[in-house]
Order: sequence, then structure tokens, then C-alpha cells
Amino acid sequence: MASEIRNVDVVIVGAGPSGLMAGAWMAQTGNTAIILEKEASRTQYGHADGIESRTFEILDSFGMGEEIWNKANRTIDLSIWNDDEHGEITRSTVRENCNPALSRFQEATLGQGQIEQTFLDFIDASHLVAVKWNTGPIDLTVCEESDYPVRVVVATRVPGAQCEEIVHSTIRAKFAIGCDGAHSWVRKTLGLGLDGDQMNENWGVFDSIPLTTFPDIRRRCIVKSAAGHLMIIPREGRLVRFYVQLPPGTEQRFKAKNDASEFVNVVKKALRPYKFDASSIEWSTVYSVGQRLCTTYSLYNRVFLAGDALHTHSPKAGQGMNVSIQDTYNLGWKLAYVIKGKAKASILRTYQGERLPIAKRLLDFDKRMVEGIREKAHASCTKCSLPANGTFEDTLREENTSASGLTVCYKPSCLITKAWKSRNCSQGIPLLPYSRTKLATNIAVGARFPNAQVLFQCDSRPCNLQQVLRSTGEWHMIVFGGDLLGGSQMRRVQRLGLRLSQDMFWSKRVNLNCDDRVGHIGAYLVHCAPRKSVDMMELPEIFRPFDQVTGFDYWKVFADNNSCSENCGGAYQAYGIGTEGCLVLVRPDQHVAFIGALDDLSAMELFLQNFML
Amino acid sequence: MASEIRNVDVVIVGAGPSGLMAGAWMAQTGNTAIILEKEASRTQYGHADGIESRTFEILDSFGMGEEIWNKANRTIDLSIWNDDEHGEITRSTVRENCNPALSRFQEATLGQGQIEQTFLDFIDASHLVAVKWNTGPIDLTVCEESDYPVRVVVATRVPGAQCEEIVHSTIRAKFAIGCDGAHSWVRKTLGLGLDGDQMNENWGVFDSIPLTTFPDIRRRCIVKSAAGHLMIIPREGRLVRFYVQLPPGTEQRFKAKNDASEFVNVVKKALRPYKFDASSIEWSTVYSVGQRLCTTYSLYNRVFLAGDALHTHSPKAGQGMNVSIQDTYNLGWKLAYVIKGKAKASILRTYQGERLPIAKRLLDFDKRMVEGIREKAHASCTKCSLPANGTFEDTLREENTSASGLTVCYKPSCLITKAWKSRNCSQGIPLLPYSRTKLATNIAVGARFPNAQVLFQCDSRPCNLQQVLRSTGEWHMIVFGGDLLGGSQMRRVQRLGLRLSQDMFWSKRVNLNCDDRVGHIGAYLVHCAPRKSVDMMELPEIFRPFDQVTGFDYWKVFADNNSCSENCGGAYQAYGIGTEGCLVLVRPDQHVAFIGALDDLSAMELFLQNFML
Repeated sequence: MASEIRNVDVVIVGAGPSGLMAGAWMAQTGNTAIILEKEASRTQYGHADGIESRTFEILDSFGMGEEIWNKANRTIDLSIWNDDEHGEITRSTVRENCNPALSRFQEATLGQGQIEQTFLDFIDASHLVAVKWNTGPIDLTVCEESDYPVRVVVATRVPGAQCEEIVHSTIRAKFAIGCDGAHSWVRKTLGLGLDGDQMNENWGVFDSIPLTTFPDIRRRCIVKSAAGHLMIIPREGRLVRFYVQLPPGTEQRFKAKNDASEFVNVVKKALRPYKFDASSIEWSTVYSVGQRLCTTYSLYNRVFLAGDALHTHSPKAGQGMNVSIQDTYNLGWKLAYVIKGKAKASILRTYQGERLPIAKRLLDFDKRMVEGIREKAHASCTKCSLPANGTFEDTLREENTSASGLTVCYKPSCLITKAWKSRNCSQGIPLLPYSRTKLATNIAVGARFPNAQVLFQCDSRPCNLQQVLRSTGEWHMIVFGGDLLGGSQMRRVQRLGLRLSQDMFWSKRVNLNCDDRVGHIGAYLVHCAPRKSVDMMELPEIFRPFDQVTGFDYWKVFADNNSCSENCGGAYQAYGIGTEGCLVLVRPDQHVAFIGALDDLSAMELFLQNFML
Repeated sequence: MASEIRNVDVVIVGAGPSGLMAGAWMAQTGNTAIILEKEASRTQYGHADGIESRTFEILDSFGMGEEIWNKANRTIDLSIWNDDEHGEITRSTVRENCNPALSRFQEATLGQGQIEQTFLDFIDASHLVAVKWNTGPIDLTVCEESDYPVRVVVATRVPGAQCEEIVHSTIRAKFAIGCDGAHSWVRKTLGLGLDGDQMNENWGVFDSIPLTTFPDIRRRCIVKSAAGHLMIIPREGRLVRFYVQLPPGTEQRFKAKNDASEFVNVVKKALRPYKFDASSIEWSTVYSVGQRLCTTYSLYNRVFLAGDALHTHSPKAGQGMNVSIQDTYNLGWKLAYVIKGKAKASILRTYQGERLPIAKRLLDFDKRMVEGIREKAHASCTKCSLPANGTFEDTLREENTSASGLTVCYKPSCLITKAWKSRNCSQGIPLLPYSRTKLATNIAVGARFPNAQVLFQCDSRPCNLQQVLRSTGEWHMIVFGGDLLGGSQMRRVQRLGLRLSQDMFWSKRVNLNCDDRVGHIGAYLVHCAPRKSVDMMELPEIFRPFDQVTGFDYWKVFADNNSCSENCGGAYQAYGIGTEGCLVLVRPDQHVAFIGALDDLSAMELFLQNFML
């Protein structure tokens, strides 16, 4: 049989959240991709369901955040219950499960299938990225001599009248990404393994509509009972997910009978004195607790791994889907730059440099989480102390900050300048932003650009500054112009504007009106003078590009002012920026690459010239 | 030719915003309707574009608010410019054009066509309401003996190969609504006219993308220049609407040439020293200023008029579409109750009783607005004083409060209890809520229920209380249970809950699980005790209805508490309700009908029995 051959920019193995995020980047940056998926359709029930605030920010930067946020259930409270000597549970603590100062989103839950659907709709609309269902790779070779160095032979199951037919075809690509889960075929084919331990601990999981008098059923709960520990995660609609610690042997019985009623029995006992039953069980499975890691993220910088193919752990903290999406969010734009010849291929090395420490921290965090849940509470104590690694409460708090991705801070590299300095951290893993300059004391170089609400200069509408940083492939230069009416600030901003319009390096990259944003830089001006005293027409033209048909673009200038209808006017203070302003350069993935003074444009240019083509 | 005959509940003449709102009510309450529209499709360009905050609240109660809000342009600032002796304009004032304390929405602008599209999508999805395009009425008769007393003969234009064909058919309906604009065929057929005056003043209007250095082009502006006064209304995208006071004679020339370039010339002169040109003109027209009113809203309570068919005025304050939508928002649910036999037909009389004073006030307001804009500012004075009716600034402020519909307060009737008391108001028109009880000092009987943010008891999610009051045809009983942990409050709430579940009148109406909401009452509990100390299972069952398949409904109980992530916990204070609580009964159109103590259920029953069947 003649084998069909197709050439694409990227072949992605696996249409889970990690593979779909890689596909979304390709769709957004005008590159072609094929996503191979051995299943016949997207996830229908169960699997991952926790979405952290940083993941929402990322989804929002593609225009997918609102749909998922509106469908999801926010898990605002976290409640801990312990049983007493009579085997009856009482509530120990209930506390808020969020850190609103860090993000405009909070943790929420939604079935993985619905998140995949939003991605699939996004990808479909691009006509550049296609998912090949019922299809898996059977051979992968790399030959650097070719324009399409990666060659993947794939097998597609085609349902026939009598029996299934298998059709083979070949895909040639510039790059491949293995997003094919814990049992990754790509990882095994590259000869790589997962290192780490399995714990001798099995948990059952089921999604169901509960019929119960347990009062905290719509709160995220940890229940510690002699009958078995539970985690309760309220979900979209009336659905609730239950994690159930299984008595030894139950796992085998579940697998043999494929019946979750034993899980329900554990919940019934653990929730006494409250009544519990399940109206119907939508999905169930069993998992063994363990933390395993692959420390090689790429071979030849041609074939990459991402998500569960690199790191597996327990679902206790609802982190898996998030870190997987964040992996390919980090990788995707870099691939787009190399494919389009807009950056040196060496930037691809930063993928492992930036993401491996995150995976290591994730596994460490998961281990502490599992231990904290397993630990039996002292009858008289509301906190489960784990002296070696801090309290369980500390671990839970960490989930809403660094573990969620909000305070991830990448080390200096060709894509992050060296304002970074080491911090005394026992595990050697960046837990908090630790790279500060005096110009913007609360913006960390290497961390994601934090949000603040400002007003459009032209019409006083409120705007989340982070929402300006759309994931289009473009870099973002935020010019904090300071108090334009004070001292020589206006002159400094005008001088800067002139260089941006006239210098060769900048003029062919900044605020151009074209569809392909890869290699471009969007420049915005945020000042802190009273907006009613500033005239847009006196500002540099680069911040109000003119077009004969559509007129001026008025929406690149912002005022850090208050308004009667919105809680604004605190951006400079929140960022720690003074009235003399500064320049902040943000990567296409919203991470801060460079902070300098308004006069530091040459230094920024040097930094960019080092890798940009 | 045999004439097709169709029977529907309501025939609506005109598919503008007013007719579409009537159709939306029918779709929502399970009634059938045909909307006749002589045009071939919805509005494509131009026409109305101002949406006031109350209209957004109404649209939101059908689930249509968010789409329109997201597409619309918010007009946050209002800027006034005057020319000097050299004919050059300078800015006199710029102030915020909103009153955020009154509504969670603010004034915004969007082309009428896009608003109609959202309505059409909503109506289409119901399969109960159809728009017959190219179709107008040619005969209307009412015969009370029939089940379908209204008979409308209609003519439909059918495009043919050679020439258009006209097809006649007959629609029989229970009720008819004439939403067919200023030149209403229905009004004329009923033998009714519009009373009032035309002023000798013509204005040109055009929608265009401006090419200008005028710095306030994205603010709502009033420009007073010897070259002609202007109103500038920034719209969605880059579009801007211009209202241009025309020199005498220009109107005829515009009509003869159908060319808006003369309007552009007036704007060019009026905006000096700024440069102005228009990239393209999307739509333009001319209108003569006048205020005219029909004071008879219905014949036989079978045929009703609404919107521009009743009241015409200048578009200066962007009120027309709003009052028109609010007319049929008032009428629609009442018709649904009478059609379904759930209320006495006499409730229909309240339509004129409630809406005629609003139309009168609208015309008075418009007159003051027109005069305020016409008035030449004194060179040294930033305010245009109109001593007889207060300052122009007062008029502008009124636009964001009473004129927008937010503080509309209906008088006592069979649908509003008599907490109302007269207020010394020279025009005899309700301008502000004036009906207060000691139980809820800031909720006015007769006015729309104001919003406050509370938390769901079960999961601490924030909720706008007004969003609970969906326009489904249902009445809403908000039980402010007070401090459930204090004194005898819990016992009072439990006694109330018991009566709601057991008394014949209430048990067949309150919190039933069925699709048709007409005739039903949704009951909600809002308490102000600390939510973590309240157990849902100790609350009356009526507030947590149980179903064998879907379990408890946990989302009818709210806590007026603060939360780390939301600005909540001030609802009782905002409403002026004490810890002893109260009962608030809200009509299907969100207007408050009754306020009583927790023990006043019998009085509420008497009120409802007076008209409910």
C-alpha cells in the first residue's frame, strides 16, 4: 500500500491538555501541526479537573479563559475534618483556598474533556492544526540533513464493515513533541525512562452526584477518618469528585469487578454521622501513589517531551494538567520563532533549563501533600504537623502560590537577563520571585508579569494590563513613562519614542500593523500623570499609530489613575515603580525578560540581538 | 387565493428592540408569537445606539446582557467644549458619565442592529416565536367572542423572477402589540395620534471612522461652536457617531443629494483648531427635533402600543431604545400571566398606569436636554445655566439615574402594594424612589430591586443578588432571615419555611421543580450570620429542595459575609435591613411589590390572591 506523506511544521503526539496547548501555539503563530491521538475522540468523563489561577491567565491570553472560567466551579473554601474516638467526623478548620492578591483568577474545577473541547474549537478555527484521531506513532527517526528532519510513521485505525483496518502513513515535520502521557511511546522510543518511587498506597477516584447531609459537600474537603481518608472536590454543576484511600486489596477487587460501589462504601463510613449515597457514578478509577521524573526534556532539540511524559505524581493537589499545559506554553512560542527563522535555534535549550526545576518542585510538593493527607491528625490538634517540611497548612498554602505557577521564576538565560540573583533556598528551586531591580521593586525578572488595572488614556475604560499581553507570538515592551507632567519625563518619553520609530532595529519590529506577530514587539505606554491633563496627540507617534482607513490606534496608552467606577490607580505602587518610570520587556509567554531605565533602550537591543534574527 | 390562517398567543408588529423584547418574553414564558416586520432583515447600520445601565440589567436577566456588554463601548467620560472669540474650541469640563453606585452596569453604545441580532438569536432558540420579514399588517379587528379575539390580515412581499408578488394571510391572536415606530400603522388604525410640538431645529447624524487630532474623540462630547453644535458619541470598534446641528436649508440639500459630506464640513469647522476628516461614512440621516406623545396605551386591553409608537423625541440622550425595551419588558410578563390563566386580565391596566408617567418624564427630560445643548455657553462660564429647570449639568446627571430607568418607581396598583406615599414633586412624576419602609430603608416598593453582592452559603462563591432574579415569569421572594444565630431568628425562619412548604397557597407555588415558571414563586434565603457557623441542613427544607437524582439544591441560600477574594458582606447595610430581617417580594420584572416582616406572610398572600389565579 502506498503510504501518504505529509509535511508539517510540528507533529504532536497526544491530544491531551499539553498537546493541545502546543497545538494552540502553532495555530496562533501561523504554523502547521498534526496532533496524533490514539483515542477516537476527546476525553468524555473524569481524568484531570483542577485549574490553577496561572493556567487561567494563560488560557485567557489566547481568548479561551472566559469560557472555561464561566463553566468551572470555584473552590473557594478548604475544609479539614477529623474523626473522633466514636468514628464520627467533626470539622477542624475551614479556610479560604485562594490568594486573590496574586491573580485575577482563582483555583477552579472543570472536567478535562470540557477544557479539551475549548482547545479543539480554538485549533479548528485556525485551519492550520488538525487532530488525527485513532492514530498513534509506530516509528520515529530524525535526520538533520532534511528540511523536515523528523519522520514519524503512524498507524490509523479505520473502522470497517467486518473488522478494523489499519492504515499507515508518514508525517515529516521540523519538530516533534511527545505529549503522550505517563506511558509515553515517544519517551520510550527516545530510550528515556522515569526515575522515582512508587509508594505502597492506592486510592480510588470517582465522579458522582452525591445525595448527602454532609454540610461541606460543596467545599473542597480533606476528611481524615479511620475508615479511610477522603478528598472531596466539588465540580461543575452538581458533580463532586471523591478521592478515597483504599484498604489493602480493594484495588484488585475494583479492577476485577470494574465497580466503584466499594469506594462509595468507604465514603459512607468515613462521613459518619452524615448520610451519604451516590445518585450515579459518572467515572471511576484507581491509582497508585508515586513520584517519577524524566530529566531529559529533548533529544537533539528536535524531539521534545512535555507533561505526564516527563513527570508523574498523585492527583492530590490538582496540579498535573496545569504543569503539563505550562510546559508546552513555555515550549510552543520558542518553536514558532525557530520555525519562522526569527530566533536562533539555541533558544530551545531554555525549555529544559526553565521547566525541569518546576517538575522537580512539583514532585517534592506532591510528596509533602500526600504525606500531609496520610498523616493522622492528633485528636486535639487542628493542624497536622510535619516538622521536616513545614506544616501541612504551609503545604496547602503553597498550592495557591508557587505550585499554581504564579510565582514561577525562570533563571537567567539567553531569554532572561541577569538581574536574577541566587537566594538561600534549601532545595535549590525557585519558590518565590527573587529577582528585583530598584526600578520596579515588585516585578521580578524571570517571573510572569503581574496584573494591575489601569485606564485607557483615550476613553477611561478600565483594562487589566495583563490582558494586553496576548499570546500572539509578539514580545511586549511596557514603557512606564512615569509622571509625564513632571520634570523632564515627557522629553525622555519623546526621545524613547523617536528611537523606536527611527532606529533600524526597532522600527522594523515595533507596533507594525501586520497579522504575523512572531518577531514583533508591541509597545505600550503606561503613565501616572492625571489623564485629563495629558493630550494623546503630544505623545510619541509610535504609541498612537496612524492608518489612513482606520485612523489612530488610541489603545496603546494607559493612565494609572483612579476612576469613579473602578478600583484603579494603584499600578505604579503595586509594581514598585517611581515617577521616573522604567522599561519592562515581556516575552511572548508573559515572563519578564528585562527591566531597565527609560534610557536603557540600547541595553535592551543588545539583549534581543543576542538571539533574535 | 386561499388565505393561510395561523393562531398564536401574541402578534407583534415591528421587529425593532421593543417588539423583540416582547418576543423574548413570549419565548421565555412558553407562549407563541409572530413578529411582523416590513423590512427584509434586521437593522444593518445606524439608528439607535445608546444602552443605559437598567437596560443592561434587563438584558442580563434573560442571559443576553453579557454578549451585548462585551461588544459595546462604554462611554465613561463626558466632555464639554466651547469655542472662543477666534472660533477655536477649548475643553470646559470633562466629568465621569456614570453613577456606579446605582448599577453594576454603566451606559454604553452599540449599533441597534447588533442588539437586535442578540434578541433574534435568543428568540430563534425557543422555536416559539417567529419573525415574518417583508410583512406588514393591512387589517386589524378585535372580536371578544373568539378564543383568538385579535385578527390581523397581513401582506408579505415575495421576490419573484419578474416582479415582486404580494401574498396575503391571516393571523389570529389573543393579543396584539404595535411596536411599529413613530409612524405606527397600529396606532393610526386604532384612531390614535401623537400630541406635541416639533421645534424648528434640524440635526444631521452620521456614523463614521474619524481621522482627527481632536483629543477627546473617544469620549462622549458636547461641542458648542458658532459653526454648529455637535454631539460626539464613540461607538464599538473605531466607529464614532456625530450629531450635527444644521444651518437652515441644509436638511433639504442632504435629502436631495443623499450625501453627508456637508455634515462632515460642519464638524470640520466646529472642531477647529483640530484637524478632522471621515475615513468612510457608514450611515447618515437627518431628524427634526420634537417631543410627541400618545396617551392611550391600549384599546380594550387587547391591542397595545409600545416604544416609538407612543413617544417620539430627539436622540440627544440616547434614551429611545431603552424606554422602548422597558415598555415591553413591563408588558410582556403580564400578558404571559393572562394568556396562561395565572392572573386576572385586570393586571393589564397597570401597563399604562406604570409606563405613561415614564414617557411623560422622558419627553420633558429630552426637552431640557435639547435646550441645554442649544444654549450657547457664556465665554467665561463652564456651565450652561437654565434657571427654569436647573442647570444643564443637573440634566446630564439625571440621565444616569432616573432617565436611565434605574430609579423608575411604579405607583401602587394591584401589582404594587401601598407602601408608596406621595412626594412633593412639581411635575408629578416619580424621579426617585420614594417608597420606604422601616424594614428595608433603602429598598423602595415600586422600584427595581437593587443589586448587592452576597456569597452562596454552600461554597462561598460570590453572587450578584440581582442575577438570581432571572426573567423567567417567576415571582421572587427574598427572605432576609437576619442573624440566624441571634435570638429567635432561626425559629422565625423555620416557622416561615414550614408555612411555605405546608400552606396550600404557598406549597403549590414555591420552589417547585418544573419548567414553566409562570405563576410560580422562587424563594431565596439571605442571612447575615457567619456562614461557617450555619449548617444548611438545619435550615427549612424549602430553601434546599431535594431530588432523588440531583440531590439537594444548595444554591438558594446566601450569606451576607465578607470573603478574602470578593468585596462582599455589605448587603444588609446597603439595603437598610436590620438583623431581624424582612420579606421582599419581587415581580417577574424585578420591581419590588411588597416588603413585610418575616411574620407578614399572610399579608403577602392576600396581596397575591388579589390577582393571581
